[in-house]
Amino acid sequence: MKKVAVIMGSTSDLPIMQDAVDILKGFDIDVDVDIVSAHRTPEKLFDFGKNAHKNGYAVIIAGAGGAAHLPGMVASLSPLPVIGVPVKSSNSIDGWDSVLSILQMPGGVPVATVALDGAKNAGILAAQIIGSSDKCVMDKIEIYKKGLKEKVIKGAEEVKGSSK
Amino acid sequence: MKKVAVIMGSTSDLPIMQDAVDILKGFDIDVDVDIVSAHRTPEKLFDFGKNAHKNGYAVIIAGAGGAAHLPGMVASLSPLPVIGVPVKSSNSIDGWDSVLSILQMPGGVPVATVALDGAKNAGILAAQIIGSSDKCVMDKIEIYKKGLKEKVIKGAEEVKGSSK
Amino acid sequence: MKKVAVIMGSTSDLPIMQDAVDILKGFDIDVDVDIVSAHRTPEKLFDFGKNAHKNGYAVIIAGAGGAAHLPGMVASLSPLPVIGVPVKSSNSIDGWDSVLSILQMPGGVPVATVALDGAKNAGILAAQIIGSSDKCVMDKIEIYKKGLKEKVIKGAEEVKGSSK
Amino acid sequence: MKKVAVIMGSTSDLPIMQDAVDILKGFDIDVDVDIVSAHRTPEKLFDFGKNAHKNGYAVIIAGAGGAAHLPGMVASLSPLPVIGVPVKSSNSIDGWDSVLSILQMPGGVPVATVALDGAKNAGILAAQIIGSSDKCVMDKIEIYKKGLKEKVIKGAEEVKGSSK
Amino acid sequence: MKKVAVIMGSTSDLPIMQDAVDILKGFDIDVDVDIVSAHRTPEKLFDFGKNAHKNGYAVIIAGAGGAAHLPGMVASLSPLPVIGVPVKSSNSIDGWDSVLSILQMPGGVPVATVALDGAKNAGILAAQIIGSSDKCVMDKIEIYKKGLKEKVIKGAEEVKGSSK
Amino acid sequence: MKKVAVIMGSTSDLPIMQDAVDILKGFDIDVDVDIVSAHRTPEKLFDFGKNAHKNGYAVIIAGAGGAAHLPGMVASLSPLPVIGVPVKSSNSIDGWDSVLSILQMPGGVPVATVALDGAKNAGILAAQIIGSSDKCVMDKIEIYKKGLKEKVIKGAEEVKGSSK
Amino acid sequence: MKKVAVIMGSTSDLPIMQDAVDILKGFDIDVDVDIVSAHRTPEKLFDFGKNAHKNGYAVIIAGAGGAAHLPGMVASLSPLPVIGVPVKSSNSIDGWDSVLSILQMPGGVPVATVALDGAKNAGILAAQIIGSSDKCVMDKIEIYKKGLKEKVIKGAEEVKGSSK
Amino acid sequence: MKKVAVIMGSTSDLPIMQDAVDILKGFDIDVDVDIVSAHRTPEKLFDFGKNAHKNGYAVIIAGAGGAAHLPGMVASLSPLPVIGVPVKSSNSIDGWDSVLSILQMPGGVPVATVALDGAKNAGILAAQIIGSSDKCVMDKIEIYKKGLKEKVIKGAEEVKGSSK
Repeated sequence: MKKVAVIMGSTSDLPIMQDAVDILKGFDIDVDVDIVSAHRTPEKLFDFGKNAHKNGYAVIIAGAGGAAHLPGMVASLSPLPVIGVPVKSSNSIDGWDSVLSILQMPGGVPVATVALDGAKNAGILAAQIIGSSDKCVMDKIEIYKKGLKEKVIKGAEEVKGSSK
Repeated sequence: MKKVAVIMGSTSDLPIMQDAVDILKGFDIDVDVDIVSAHRTPEKLFDFGKNAHKNGYAVIIAGAGGAAHLPGMVASLSPLPVIGVPVKSSNSIDGWDSVLSILQMPGGVPVATVALDGAKNAGILAAQIIGSSDKCVMDKIEIYKKGLKEKVIKGAEEVKGSSK
Repeated sequence: MKKVAVIMGSTSDLPIMQDAVDILKGFDIDVDVDIVSAHRTPEKLFDFGKNAHKNGYAVIIAGAGGAAHLPGMVASLSPLPVIGVPVKSSNSIDGWDSVLSILQMPGGVPVATVALDGAKNAGILAAQIIGSSDKCVMDKIEIYKKGLKEKVIKGAEEVKGSSK
Repeated sequence: MKKVAVIMGSTSDLPIMQDAVDILKGFDIDVDVDIVSAHRTPEKLFDFGKNAHKNGYAVIIAGAGGAAHLPGMVASLSPLPVIGVPVKSSNSIDGWDSVLSILQMPGGVPVATVALDGAKNAGILAAQIIGSSDKCVMDKIEIYKKGLKEKVIKGAEEVKGSSK
Repeated sequence: MKKVAVIMGSTSDLPIMQDAVDILKGFDIDVDVDIVSAHRTPEKLFDFGKNAHKNGYAVIIAGAGGAAHLPGMVASLSPLPVIGVPVKSSNSIDGWDSVLSILQMPGGVPVATVALDGAKNAGILAAQIIGSSDKCVMDKIEIYKKGLKEKVIKGAEEVKGSSK
Repeated sequence: MKKVAVIMGSTSDLPIMQDAVDILKGFDIDVDVDIVSAHRTPEKLFDFGKNAHKNGYAVIIAGAGGAAHLPGMVASLSPLPVIGVPVKSSNSIDGWDSVLSILQMPGGVPVATVALDGAKNAGILAAQIIGSSDKCVMDKIEIYKKGLKEKVIKGAEEVKGSSK
Repeated sequence: MKKVAVIMGSTSDLPIMQDAVDILKGFDIDVDVDIVSAHRTPEKLFDFGKNAHKNGYAVIIAGAGGAAHLPGMVASLSPLPVIGVPVKSSNSIDGWDSVLSILQMPGGVPVATVALDGAKNAGILAAQIIGSSDKCVMDKIEIYKKGLKEKVIKGAEEVKGSSK
Repeated sequence: MKKVAVIMGSTSDLPIMQDAVDILKGFDIDVDVDIVSAHRTPEKLFDFGKNAHKNGYAVIIAGAGGAAHLPGMVASLSPLPVIGVPVKSSNSIDGWDSVLSILQMPGGVPVATVALDGAKNAGILAAQIIGSSDKCVMDKIEIYKKGLKEKVIKGAEEVKGSSK
């Protein structure tokens, strides 16, 4: 079955990126987690990017902060869809550097960018990509979306109840 | 075979969004183009979003500018992966409104955002999504990437030649 | 008598949005509070927006954060004046996304936007809208403004007293 | 019948602000236009603001650019709902100054802010405010919104036709 | 002797604005402090602005935050030099609104703007303005600048000592 | 009689800075113009800054763009009030660099900053500074402000006439 | 003798980057120019970065725009000092993406960033780096700086002459 | 042997700037630390800048915050390469002022700018500059980069271990 790779530039990104892992496991999708630093382990980046599609991955999720080059460089090396998660790391200028250095890729090399610290949505998007050719995963996404709806409706009832 | 829907909020977005259509046609992927305005045709938005996955689409590309709600609202209604193209429309504040109102989706409802006016990359990303489960399309992406490389190398030779 | 609807995208917006409820109650204007998520309960959004003017509301106040589509989508669906409150939610980039995705509506579909987290002013603005055709409410607004003035003048006296 | 005042800080704002006048005339709502500069004619600002609600106005639309104080100062002086139009004037820093100095009003004194150069939407919003207590005007707004929809649907058909 | 007026929009601005008062007292310049809210006490603003130059003031320092209209409106009403202090108040978007709504005054009506929360520098600037026609005050400024220099030189020595 | 120095970092700033010269001449105030580059003629900067108050200047107006150090460095060297004009030069990032590098001076060394490209207001502010101790100049400022008012009132009449 | 490599992501960057080449030639420093795209020719990037210090280069100048990964990736691969030139390319959001994705490198991997489109300064900085261990080059820099000074002084004389 | 000067505008910058000192000492490069305030000790700035290259320094690292003029003014005075560290000081607007007033130097006078609070990278860059003509230092940089790589690889193993 298809797997998703969740990679990040530093162990300090893990608390944010774990959200992607958790949601994918909730959809029963296999996930591998690894640290691949564009700036400190460029050879590992190269190996990873060149071979990801041969290693059984269907989608790559890459998170990084500051001058965040990991998602774009993986997208440069791999033919797979790459989802980029801008991380608001401690050295970031309010997250703007993370967002812009992932989002603004040149023509030819897209990165599917999600919201700042939006690793959860990266996981859902990866599931949707798999689901677009896998009826079973798409069914799970529809159930997940129904769950979101029910939670809001329940919250609405509590607000109405308490405001009386 | 799987199709891609390319929708946009206004006919004025077409010159930008045509890039997505063209690149997809270059990959021999079927594309349907439509105008769906979140703010002026909300019923059409609803019908489109609710039924896209039943109508043979594998991926939706949605472009809009200013307070750009079309990509996020379609993502709200459909279980399919939705790619958002922030368009730098005439009423936009340098594109920042388009980017932020597409990118910063809440947890649970992702939009795969590409660069400002990056419709070409939206098309490539849609092809990559289809390619992640379709060997034939992925092969075409690898050929496309090889073409990018060759063009740069040829340009490099011309620069070296002319700078002598 | 005319009512105001105060809706918001998430229960987490309630601490901010309660200011609108409180000030409207202070003007003896009826208020209904509800959670309507554009992204998680799009059907409820549609029902609410389509019927608000038939359900006795004169004004709608809608608060949301991040890629905030609720105010604009309600404005798309309803002929009533819609007041948008950009909420600086936890996933927001310093509030800029909330502000721009509410303010920058396209021609034809206005949202009356107030300051970031400005739910109190949204309540006053709703009262002013009702007051523009209801002498009794306008009188209360004039009394309210007089109260603001007196509080400042009293504060000024204390500052002068303490600085001697 | 109720009138709307459209004021602006300078004759150079007129090309933008004319959109508000035109749309209101389209709704058969009476409009008065005047130049009131907060910074160059403060006495006129005072007279205007203090007396607008006694002079038959139901809503005030105020446009200004740069450090734009006119909408907020009129809101300070009048109990009427005030709609602010941030104008991207020649001395503005990409419109950010105009937007922020109109939008970010302190608690107690709201300005209903529309998009940068969004005078057309200011006119529609003023009509909606009048329409919230005037069935005849609200009917016209519903017709107007229907017209927006039809225009988009017609445009969509043309796009589909030409893309075949 | 010439006096300086230090006014602000709210008592909550006093902790910042007190720096201006303190430094002016250090230069033996008379200071009056008052709360004048452009938005809540517009009549007081008018009286203050119209009469400041008749009441013995040589310079006005005005501090405000958010959509900060006080400095510009006082500059509109008075022929005196007005120094504006952008205050990073709790409702401000990181101070950008305070800065832009004070700095970006239209041609004809200047406000001498200092740094965000820069009330101390507003006090020094007021002293320099008085000093430009008062030898005694200018001498004190030169002594003050000498003091700044000595403090840095002493700090430099301590750094060199400790780093050995 | 007191003079004003108008200096700038480059001859390319002259078209903007000429506004300051013109308005000061209109107030019959003597002006000297010079090019003093903080980065290319630091010795001239030093000589100028150290001696300006001995050379009969009452106020210094300094304009510069990009990383604009001239106003702040002159303020460092001179006890006189220094007015800074952020110039939107060709190498500037939309003027933000010019504004922030002039405005955000540290405690102890103020620069009276005016709007981007606001040389005209710098000239008026210099006149107001001289006027704060020179009745004759202050009278001229009051006449100037009256002129601004009359021009607006005349423009208002034309707008009313043409809109009938 | 030591050489400088001037590389850029695309031939479209050449008009900007040529300034670096020209100024280095003016200092009689050898320059090689090449196109190396991080996103389209990652293998060439790898080869270039790994071997630059073995190929006789003392400094690398790398220019790129948008999500600009070339300077940072070369800095990741090479022990040489790398100077980054943010280019305001056509797909850039006013240059902010180019600046932030080059400047905000993580701890351990610096890029010496110059101003937006500041290729000329990149060339001078490269000369200064060589000059810090090469007396002959440093002498040329001192002569160059003297030339800058003389040009300003001559410009100042013309301004003084023409303003009489 | 060649020395590096690490200077800063205020003792409050020392906690940030110490990172540069520490990393240079780790490379066995001599460092001198000093406080040189462009705005409070301009004479010291002049002496330092004019003589740094005669006093045995090969590189100057200068850190400052807010309207940060120290790096640019030292670059104006010295022929040496100057590395600027934008410090996010307490009076800074989220660091933007520090970054822009150091980065955006005019043509002719470069400052090698590193990331906000990036003093560690300033130290490494200074070592690289020395290393570009000193084999022994370059070897140490290669060893340092290898250390970065090993730390990431070790972190990656721990993440993989713990995620099983």
